[in-house]
Amino acid sequence: MTHDQETILLQGHIIDSLILAKVLDTILMMGGTFDFEDVQIGKTREEPSRARIIVRASSAKLLSEILHAIQPHGASVESERDCRLTAAPANGILPDEFYATTHLPTQVRIHGQWLEVAGIEMDLGIHVDPVGLTARTVPMGEVERGDLIVTGREGVRVTPLQRPRDCDVFSFMTSQVSSERPHGHMIGDIAKRLVQLRAGFQEGQTGSKVLLAGGPAIVHAGGREALAWLIEEEFIHVVFCGNALPAHDMEIDLYGTSLGYGHAAGRVVPHGHEHHLRTINRIRAIGSIEAAVKSGIITTGIMAACVRRGVHVVMAGTIRDDGPLPGVITDSIAAQTAMRAAIPGIGLALLVASTLHAVATGNLLPASILSVCVDVNPSVPTKLADRGSFQAVGLVMDAASFLRDLARELGARL
Amino acid sequence: MTHDQETILLQGHIIDSLILAKVLDTILMMGGTFDFEDVQIGKTREEPSRARIIVRASSAKLLSEILHAIQPHGASVESERDCRLTAAPANGILPDEFYATTHLPTQVRIHGQWLEVAGIEMDLGIHVDPVGLTARTVPMGEVERGDLIVTGREGVRVTPLQRPRDCDVFSFMTSQVSSERPHGHMIGDIAKRLVQLRAGFQEGQTGSKVLLAGGPAIVHAGGREALAWLIEEEFIHVVFCGNALPAHDMEIDLYGTSLGYGHAAGRVVPHGHEHHLRTINRIRAIGSIEAAVKSGIITTGIMAACVRRGVHVVMAGTIRDDGPLPGVITDSIAAQTAMRAAIPGIGLALLVASTLHAVATGNLLPASILSVCVDVNPSVPTKLADRGSFQAVGLVMDAASFLRDLARELGARL
Amino acid sequence: MTHDQETILLQGHIIDSLILAKVLDTILMMGGTFDFEDVQIGKTREEPSRARIIVRASSAKLLSEILHAIQPHGASVESERDCRLTAAPANGILPDEFYATTHLPTQVRIHGQWLEVAGIEMDLGIHVDPVGLTARTVPMGEVERGDLIVTGREGVRVTPLQRPRDCDVFSFMTSQVSSERPHGHMIGDIAKRLVQLRAGFQEGQTGSKVLLAGGPAIVHAGGREALAWLIEEEFIHVVFCGNALPAHDMEIDLYGTSLGYGHAAGRVVPHGHEHHLRTINRIRAIGSIEAAVKSGIITTGIMAACVRRGVHVVMAGTIRDDGPLPGVITDSIAAQTAMRAAIPGIGLALLVASTLHAVATGNLLPASILSVCVDVNPSVPTKLADRGSFQAVGLVMDAASFLRDLARELGARL
Amino acid sequence: MTHDQETILLQGHIIDSLILAKVLDTILMMGGTFDFEDVQIGKTREEPSRARIIVRASSAKLLSEILHAIQPHGASVESERDCRLTAAPANGILPDEFYATTHLPTQVRIHGQWLEVAGIEMDLGIHVDPVGLTARTVPMGEVERGDLIVTGREGVRVTPLQRPRDCDVFSFMTSQVSSERPHGHMIGDIAKRLVQLRAGFQEGQTGSKVLLAGGPAIVHAGGREALAWLIEEEFIHVVFCGNALPAHDMEIDLYGTSLGYGHAAGRVVPHGHEHHLRTINRIRAIGSIEAAVKSGIITTGIMAACVRRGVHVVMAGTIRDDGPLPGVITDSIAAQTAMRAAIPGIGLALLVASTLHAVATGNLLPASILSVCVDVNPSVPTKLADRGSFQAVGLVMDAASFLRDLARELGARL
Repeated sequence: MTHDQETILLQGHIIDSLILAKVLDTILMMGGTFDFEDVQIGKTREEPSRARIIVRASSAKLLSEILHAIQPHGASVESERDCRLTAAPANGILPDEFYATTHLPTQVRIHGQWLEVAGIEMDLGIHVDPVGLTARTVPMGEVERGDLIVTGREGVRVTPLQRPRDCDVFSFMTSQVSSERPHGHMIGDIAKRLVQLRAGFQEGQTGSKVLLAGGPAIVHAGGREALAWLIEEEFIHVVFCGNALPAHDMEIDLYGTSLGYGHAAGRVVPHGHEHHLRTINRIRAIGSIEAAVKSGIITTGIMAACVRRGVHVVMAGTIRDDGPLPGVITDSIAAQTAMRAAIPGIGLALLVASTLHAVATGNLLPASILSVCVDVNPSVPTKLADRGSFQAVGLVMDAASFLRDLARELGARL
Repeated sequence: MTHDQETILLQGHIIDSLILAKVLDTILMMGGTFDFEDVQIGKTREEPSRARIIVRASSAKLLSEILHAIQPHGASVESERDCRLTAAPANGILPDEFYATTHLPTQVRIHGQWLEVAGIEMDLGIHVDPVGLTARTVPMGEVERGDLIVTGREGVRVTPLQRPRDCDVFSFMTSQVSSERPHGHMIGDIAKRLVQLRAGFQEGQTGSKVLLAGGPAIVHAGGREALAWLIEEEFIHVVFCGNALPAHDMEIDLYGTSLGYGHAAGRVVPHGHEHHLRTINRIRAIGSIEAAVKSGIITTGIMAACVRRGVHVVMAGTIRDDGPLPGVITDSIAAQTAMRAAIPGIGLALLVASTLHAVATGNLLPASILSVCVDVNPSVPTKLADRGSFQAVGLVMDAASFLRDLARELGARL
Repeated sequence: MTHDQETILLQGHIIDSLILAKVLDTILMMGGTFDFEDVQIGKTREEPSRARIIVRASSAKLLSEILHAIQPHGASVESERDCRLTAAPANGILPDEFYATTHLPTQVRIHGQWLEVAGIEMDLGIHVDPVGLTARTVPMGEVERGDLIVTGREGVRVTPLQRPRDCDVFSFMTSQVSSERPHGHMIGDIAKRLVQLRAGFQEGQTGSKVLLAGGPAIVHAGGREALAWLIEEEFIHVVFCGNALPAHDMEIDLYGTSLGYGHAAGRVVPHGHEHHLRTINRIRAIGSIEAAVKSGIITTGIMAACVRRGVHVVMAGTIRDDGPLPGVITDSIAAQTAMRAAIPGIGLALLVASTLHAVATGNLLPASILSVCVDVNPSVPTKLADRGSFQAVGLVMDAASFLRDLARELGARL
Repeated sequence: MTHDQETILLQGHIIDSLILAKVLDTILMMGGTFDFEDVQIGKTREEPSRARIIVRASSAKLLSEILHAIQPHGASVESERDCRLTAAPANGILPDEFYATTHLPTQVRIHGQWLEVAGIEMDLGIHVDPVGLTARTVPMGEVERGDLIVTGREGVRVTPLQRPRDCDVFSFMTSQVSSERPHGHMIGDIAKRLVQLRAGFQEGQTGSKVLLAGGPAIVHAGGREALAWLIEEEFIHVVFCGNALPAHDMEIDLYGTSLGYGHAAGRVVPHGHEHHLRTINRIRAIGSIEAAVKSGIITTGIMAACVRRGVHVVMAGTIRDDGPLPGVITDSIAAQTAMRAAIPGIGLALLVASTLHAVATGNLLPASILSVCVDVNPSVPTKLADRGSFQAVGLVMDAASFLRDLARELGARL
């Protein structure tokens, strides 16, 4: 019985990233077999390893399926071919067999040459300009008729991430998410990163911006002052949120309440639940959050700090919203586009107390960007931390405790 | 020392709805005092009660605050005056002191006459036509310059809901939400309601439509077949969802997977996570879900059943979406409007496994519409059931178990 | 048609505690009717109210059922009779119709005289000495053959709790449990109480002890230092725990780890999961925790603070335990007895991060003792706060953040 | 610079169990280096692999630490030595450096001969009889002065589990726990196992017993009938529970309620919360659960089925218990011993809706026994499924839905 076979190459930190194990496991599980041709395993954690493996299967179809399945782990087929390009059949429609991106660094082969794919993000297509020799991701909705899109998996290779050199919370293989772990070290490590990134940001280094994507529980639970401090101190440079976080933030400024709970009184106040509506109405009358801050009507809190510090805020609407506030992007695709445009230059993402924003932002982030997901409900950080990379850390704690501990660690007196 | 005072009236089921207790408590807590002038308490559960209470406070300001605070409980000031109307200052801006609606039946007094407010929903303004003698709610974003809007609380009265006459799960005061309660009875009661409502729907009775608002966990967890059955059998007439539920529903039809999990295989399949992208791309190429069903490409599942039965589907986009599918309303305000337009005629709302849709739909529903909120995470049904009315019931269970048990109770063989 | 009827009396804070509403609702729901004979409602929050109500039912049996059902709300039948006493048929067995206690203050009527029942706690029997004219609760397992036990509900009255005079977190009717509320005020109020109680304790006032019942997550999550500080500063006088909390507390002292997680290293250390076993073994070899502290082997942490400050520690075993440590009461009934014996004199109970201990302790506490339940999982504080009294407050936050915030509020530098 | 080095052997399914990856990762992380001497990787999933690896470290101490750290993964040092034995210093005290067991198959080397350690369970010591050449685990509390206990890690080897041959839910590497996965397949696979095990049990095969460890939520949530059916049909042979499950089970038989909730009425009944106390008191008066069933007082439910089918029930007490019921083992160490004694012969463990029993039972089970953990709260199945073996499966669903679906799959008409 003759077998189809193909030689694949695996390189990089394939041992300590478990990539070799996963690739071999996948081959066996799918019914294939393998032989090692040449295995060189790095002697230290920094030194990369390299394995050359012959994969065999009982049919060409099965072999192809196996190769497809192991490709996202960084296995490249040795007999390299150019990637296949197919023209998009219509605006907003990708070709049938389009290659769907992962969030890992990706290259495509054109005219024998490997091109880095720009704008890496999960679940997009890859648009190639074979003349200009460029490749970049394209969301399904933005593809135009005739765009050359990569189809199939040939000529595409992804690079597994290396374990980070810094020995901190981001460098462990299994970022276990647990409410039964002390958060002190993690918050300490995050604070150190924020200090480094701020220094980089102030020197104009690329990749040194910090993104916070958060929900209104930050405000309700008492984390507003800490977050405003972090923004004022220039630790945060981009904010993703919805309509509710700014509404309740400014509600505290105007009425002293959030969701009707009087923060000074320490209890629900009569008619307090209407205050966010009145806040939204008032800001609509003023015209913009920026105008409300600049005219001195809103003086404290998160939005005021953002305006004063020139933080880039993307507010995305949902069907739960009242109002909404001026500046909220009600179209979800337009909001995605605005969020996507704000990603380049981000070095660390804090995803706090918002399932929707944490997941949406997580989808937009390349795997190489460090991310911290904080939620009192363990399902959200578990989901986010489970992206198979070193860079995602989850903390199960309430948003306010997290932000206050982080700010205190950075010197705030709260 | 002279005191300001005002006589208020409370009527209806003020004892067993705890309204009397809440009103008196509020008066005392805010620093006022009261005397009973005339209390007639109904002798049976059906018979309404009536209390005439003199409220006293140390200042006119405090008295006004107390009257405002108790007004949402249905306390109307005896010395009735017309409601105050103020013109909206600009498009999309309500007057400063606009009255914000509750989800309870509400009347406003114009020229000495009480008008029912149409389109009752939480957190809206009330737009009055004092000539045509009509009043209806208006969302902040839809108000037009010059519209006469109710301001202050005078001349507005809300009617507490009566306890329902049917003695089932919807008729208890405290719909405790617990995973430690048997669901059998609740599901049995819901099934009985569905049978009644279907009969009413088929006879063209108003208020007999059933709404399901749901998330993709319905599909992932194995509830697709049951929900499709409920739709085919005409137990459900309106569906609110996002992009993910229909995408994963049709992914099963096209690829046998949802979120990459092979439902027949019983495990994650290689590259399965791409299938929802390919599904969305394919439906985009076809042009619409309806066309995909009618052309025989999609034959099973929730969307196919909706198309076949003419179910009114409102799909609302979010920033998490891939694609999205054709038909998804990406603008959140437009989506709200579409959802709002689908509410009239609804008699029962099933809010299943989607926090976003459950909360958004809950905001749109008047308190008189029965609603059932099902989620494996207790926080969602707790929040929804905590609306202070008899009509909201919460179940802590996974979506698939709920839908299958409900369908079985109604005769499905699953 | 003749009706059976009985006149009942309700007194105290029956309006603002919702008691009147609940009693009337219960009468109606069970099919009875009522007339008010005399209603005097207190004009201020402090002034008690009083209602005399004629309850009617279609049969003596129904009337009796209704009277039974409303009795726990404090409704006493005007035609007062002595309570009925029945001898216990055997050791450890209560008479069939024994009266089961609530956690509210309770009196029984003997020879026309109302006796206060000592040792109030939920779900016990009442043992009466009709000669000595004393009454006290008795656990089922401790009853002795021939003990005179109250049976039926006649001649028993319970007193609903008054709303506390202090205007703090413990004085609100609905202690809503939410992770979306700021904890600052609550923790501030708890801190104030701790300061008052410590002053009282140091002056030897009764009812000024503070109990902490907690689980090992306090240690794992990083709250050990804060809790040790609170004990050293004499804010806590009684500790209820299991085997795990002291084991992991002393594991940190001996090995620097808890559950194998190195607190200084900030990560799991090799073989760290064995450290709690070695800790337990070592303390067993030494003979007692007290000896380990006194001999200088254990110098830091919760147990060391308890030994130094003479805190009364009750350690109760479970089937999960390794070892256990010397001093752990492995018999659950003996442990209950030891916990029960430590309750008198407690003025405030902190129930932190242990479902088992929170529920067990909650069962032992009379309703008049303030309690605070803290857990990152909302189901525990929700359950505990839902005891129908003003005195139970729930916080959804991780144990370490709670203890650290509390200690900081009291002056600790952490 | 000279280095210490040692050659280790790894054999078995070291690739697809990720053991090779973990071992190499551990060596590198701890600062060591390695060389492959001889690697033979199995060509199929069944064929074992074998690696001979030289581990180097900069000091003998570091080398020893690394060898210790990798030993639980099955790495045995080639230069094999006998295990070290130390006499226990006193009753109930293990020697300082005692070897703490894992839940994996373990051998110790005595006189050059490898002995299988009997009674494998986590976190125990190993007691060796060097004359009789036997080795078995011993709990700390049961060790006697002079017992020879294995100390250090030399001469101990553990065998990683093989991936099961059956291709079902138990054979996947990552038993992901999710409420967003369909449970149908998992329950189908469990049902198939139950059918096989029952056949084996009826033929007297060892390892064919099924254990259910469960909490009272089974009864409260409506799973009592299904569980009783499974017991009557001889699918379950051992039951671990506390006081509450049998109390509420028999409460339904006697009063129709559980926790005061009337199962037929579909709502809380007056005074229902006392029924479990009366049930316990009544069974105490009768003398035993068995007598209550045999005398016809208890006729339906879980306990009745257990008595009729001779199921081995171990009831363990806790400090939450009322009563307790006769037969409840109130001493936690005695209860552990009774549970431990019931483990041999178990082939599958169902851990349902009880954190305490799930964790306690999980600790007692060797890794080779299949276990299924079911809870509506994801933290419990996540913790249990995270034991690094193929054999633990977690389902996030309510207990009643699980048991009913399982019983239906096996032919029950519920």
